[in-house]
Amino acid sequence: MSAQPTSKALQGEVNRLKLELHTMHTERGTSEITVANYILTRLVQLGVTKMFGVPGDFNLAFLDLVEDHKSIDWVGNCNELNAAYAADGYARVKQTSLGVVTTTFGVGELSAMNGIAGAFSEMVPVLHLVGVPSTTQQKARPILHHTLGDGRYDAYTIASQQFTIMQTSLNKDSDVARLIDDTLVACITRARPVYMTLPTDMVYEHISAERLKIPLARHPAINDVETEDFVLDVIEERVKEAGGDVIILVDACVIRFEVQDEVNDLLRSTGFPVYATPMGKTAIDESYERYGGVYIGSITQPLVKERVESAKLILSIGLLSSDFNTGNFSYNIPIRRLIELHSDHTRIQYALFQGVGMKQLLPKLTERLKQFHANASKIPVEPFTSMVPKSMGGDETIVHSHFWPRVGQFFQPKDVIITETGTANFGIMNIPLPDGAKLVSQILWGSIGWSVGSALGAAFAARETGKNRVILFVGEGSLQLTVQELSPMIRHGLTPILFVINNAGYTIEKFIHGKYRKYNNVDNWKWTGLLDTFGCNSGKPSKSYTVSTRTELDRLLNNEEFGAAKQIQLVEVVMPALDAPDVLTQTAGQKA
Amino acid sequence: MSAQPTSKALQGEVNRLKLELHTMHTERGTSEITVANYILTRLVQLGVTKMFGVPGDFNLAFLDLVEDHKSIDWVGNCNELNAAYAADGYARVKQTSLGVVTTTFGVGELSAMNGIAGAFSEMVPVLHLVGVPSTTQQKARPILHHTLGDGRYDAYTIASQQFTIMQTSLNKDSDVARLIDDTLVACITRARPVYMTLPTDMVYEHISAERLKIPLARHPAINDVETEDFVLDVIEERVKEAGGDVIILVDACVIRFEVQDEVNDLLRSTGFPVYATPMGKTAIDESYERYGGVYIGSITQPLVKERVESAKLILSIGLLSSDFNTGNFSYNIPIRRLIELHSDHTRIQYALFQGVGMKQLLPKLTERLKQFHANASKIPVEPFTSMVPKSMGGDETIVHSHFWPRVGQFFQPKDVIITETGTANFGIMNIPLPDGAKLVSQILWGSIGWSVGSALGAAFAARETGKNRVILFVGEGSLQLTVQELSPMIRHGLTPILFVINNAGYTIEKFIHGKYRKYNNVDNWKWTGLLDTFGCNSGKPSKSYTVSTRTELDRLLNNEEFGAAKQIQLVEVVMPALDAPDVLTQTAGQKA
Repeated sequence: MSAQPTSKALQGEVNRLKLELHTMHTERGTSEITVANYILTRLVQLGVTKMFGVPGDFNLAFLDLVEDHKSIDWVGNCNELNAAYAADGYARVKQTSLGVVTTTFGVGELSAMNGIAGAFSEMVPVLHLVGVPSTTQQKARPILHHTLGDGRYDAYTIASQQFTIMQTSLNKDSDVARLIDDTLVACITRARPVYMTLPTDMVYEHISAERLKIPLARHPAINDVETEDFVLDVIEERVKEAGGDVIILVDACVIRFEVQDEVNDLLRSTGFPVYATPMGKTAIDESYERYGGVYIGSITQPLVKERVESAKLILSIGLLSSDFNTGNFSYNIPIRRLIELHSDHTRIQYALFQGVGMKQLLPKLTERLKQFHANASKIPVEPFTSMVPKSMGGDETIVHSHFWPRVGQFFQPKDVIITETGTANFGIMNIPLPDGAKLVSQILWGSIGWSVGSALGAAFAARETGKNRVILFVGEGSLQLTVQELSPMIRHGLTPILFVINNAGYTIEKFIHGKYRKYNNVDNWKWTGLLDTFGCNSGKPSKSYTVSTRTELDRLLNNEEFGAAKQIQLVEVVMPALDAPDVLTQTAGQKA
Repeated sequence: MSAQPTSKALQGEVNRLKLELHTMHTERGTSEITVANYILTRLVQLGVTKMFGVPGDFNLAFLDLVEDHKSIDWVGNCNELNAAYAADGYARVKQTSLGVVTTTFGVGELSAMNGIAGAFSEMVPVLHLVGVPSTTQQKARPILHHTLGDGRYDAYTIASQQFTIMQTSLNKDSDVARLIDDTLVACITRARPVYMTLPTDMVYEHISAERLKIPLARHPAINDVETEDFVLDVIEERVKEAGGDVIILVDACVIRFEVQDEVNDLLRSTGFPVYATPMGKTAIDESYERYGGVYIGSITQPLVKERVESAKLILSIGLLSSDFNTGNFSYNIPIRRLIELHSDHTRIQYALFQGVGMKQLLPKLTERLKQFHANASKIPVEPFTSMVPKSMGGDETIVHSHFWPRVGQFFQPKDVIITETGTANFGIMNIPLPDGAKLVSQILWGSIGWSVGSALGAAFAARETGKNRVILFVGEGSLQLTVQELSPMIRHGLTPILFVINNAGYTIEKFIHGKYRKYNNVDNWKWTGLLDTFGCNSGKPSKSYTVSTRTELDRLLNNEEFGAAKQIQLVEVVMPALDAPDVLTQTAGQKA
């Protein structure tokens, strides 16, 4: 099959759109719109319905327009870091859209920086929109509040260059509409955060609305036709040599670059067994009969490890090779047996093919490889299951080896499950999740406290995309960093279930270093008092529970009213201080 | 009198040179110490007793040494931004020392960035110490967790360049002891934050301990003798021309560069009247009989404005000319009548004299100007007072015009009073504070939520420096950003009084823009439940109150047990949503 016609057609379409845009551009002024509403209109076109952030005097005029907007709601976070986390969580669950966080000059934007850097690291499309002093003030550079006192008005933008792929300053001399479009396109096609400053006097500035008639295309660069054709030939040849003994390994970028449908087609057409990395977990449904579980290098469950590493060829899709995602770089897969498909390149064994991205390659690869179905479908795959272990001697202590399989039974199709960096990220790993369930975690960046803000954004996105319940697992140490973000959850009537693992400190740190050190302990708050403290004047219902025994845990998880998740609920799960999931102790052990 | 460098400055220079010589002559290895303990020893020498921060896997080995250290305590904050705020508050109150915040690579350090930038802006000496991957990892640059996924290990340092005056990377090839010393000296002499990375494998690396025998000198550069002599001549001449009709205006840098004693000598020797800017308030005792109150440009109280602006010569010391510190740049003082003394330069009318800093200039200036005492002491100064207004018709509503004069009566000598950006910063402005009281606020940087973290650090410093009570005034909107920092206050047995102004939202924003906008409202938490939620398992006592009427406020402020501040106490002060101090409404009005 030739790859040529499709690409040619695409190239033609691109040329046509470019020309049309150019024409529109010259007819500037036919229909006008304010800069702020141009941005908001584009965001609506891209599916944005929520804007996260904190008001500050340089963004207030813009927030008037957000508050009055009929399709975008202002969420109003308790602080900017949490707002950035929420925008990240929203983008992760919404998937075909982006997250937006609005802050104010200096103080607000710098508070959000860790959240933005996390979105960069983990490839999440987030727009960081910053209200800044007027263009006049930026020229005169007085020592305004929120400045460094030395007239350096560009310091924050310079810092943000490290953590965003594009920094756009909107001002009167610039081609504002085009800049906004280019910035948003960069964000959504490259799945990375972008940074845009909106001066106070630009909010109501009028620009042409003509470009808005043509929607922004969320398409990656078009593959080079001849290279792509060559790549398809070589992969087909390698698979033939391997006699169809191929396994597929799905990773984070399958989700980030939205090739889940393409991967599912490939899997069903070829019958190749499939495994996921920690960051690729739930990229495909874990109930799929040819799915064999999670591969984490040397700390993989033995039979899964054997199946993956003994395959003649491993086709890795969307690989993200970080330490915690690979069992500390312990893959036992020779490069000779490895093919990697990425968003903008392909690797076959030792050869790199730039400009061949997976989005367009995958459907063609499916056509090429479906001939192997008969052989491939005979490759054995162990069913991916977990069992709740029997209590020894009636032990009622809730330990990780019991807790995770038990909550595994509680999950329902389409649940959104958010796990915090720490015991939760590792505990969930080998638990099969139901159809349509989505696991959201931050394994590469690993900023503690992220999951709480992220859960807020995820809960909005879940509601909008027809997902089921939102279930958060967070350690009490991590919760302390971002606890105030429970407040907007209550205000907006979101109904997540929040499992707070109370095990007397930063357990993941204890397993890395300082098991008995005081610095790894945290204060033991009245966890079940939090929802009441934040929400008792809100008029919104909430409920909190403590479970200290397996029987109490069972009773709660079996309670239909609890499982229906009609109100926000917090469960304090009391666990021993020095108990951890096996995957965590093994990972920590490797590091030592 | 001949202009010689002061003996203190000379002694400092001698020490510095001795240190250099000593290092040159000492054989490496005569006496050895680990890098971590070298840092800790230097910090102890500089008066540091507390280290703020959050554990993370790249700083844990270092924290072992902190936890085991006999003179430095690990505080353990709930998140890194709050920790940076606490280090800032500690440095502000401790004054002859510095604040230290320890974070981990990437996630931790970026969360602290807004706090560090605030310390830069407001000139507060803070060391940001970051635990980073080993020197080996930094060469190989694997995709570790907490990295951006693209091998850029220097991204965080590059960002920090914008907000710190020195960035030091400790590694095996560097002259580690000298680097540490230079970094700390830069921090304390220039009163700005510095950034230092400590790789995991450098913590226990041995270096020579010889340099530790010579203390680091906290002295500014020595003034150029001839320029200084000329400056003294010119100032004396100008004062003579003005017939001694001079007023002195003290500002932030009098506190930051520790010239309070020198300024007091000048005041008492000359008898010149003295006024403070908002950021200079409490730089000199407000009970001083020649002190006339606060000058804020056009929004100054009329009589004070007249006194300041009609003087023939204004001697400004430590000026920091930001918008909120100057009534939005509304000084009515012609440059012809203005002399400015700064940390490293002097301005006389239009002339700039580089290299003449105030620390050494002031004692000599006092000698030159004491001849004017007879005339100067006749210049009238209005007493700086405030009165609690009588309730009209028995109105019980707690409004700002009543609240601030009333709490003014509650203050005691040596209280440390912390006010949040918002109504509190403006409300306290025209309230006279007792002898030895210290006002801590962040008028230039103005990051909401700062005061809560800062109060934690201030409370430690107050205890160590023999101050009295620590009293925080924070709006409920600002408290939401950093609320978890009440938890370490409780854990460490600190006993601040926390006034939470509950007025249904971000009142300062409402006066700037969006008076009736929803985005300026915040959730109404159960404020009096916070200390219990965070502290009920701590074994530490706490007490919370709500006051909604003037009578209730009176009763509480008159309650001796409350005033004794023997436990942490939180007071929810219910105030109307759209009431604000006059100084705030006037400032906001100017901006419109």
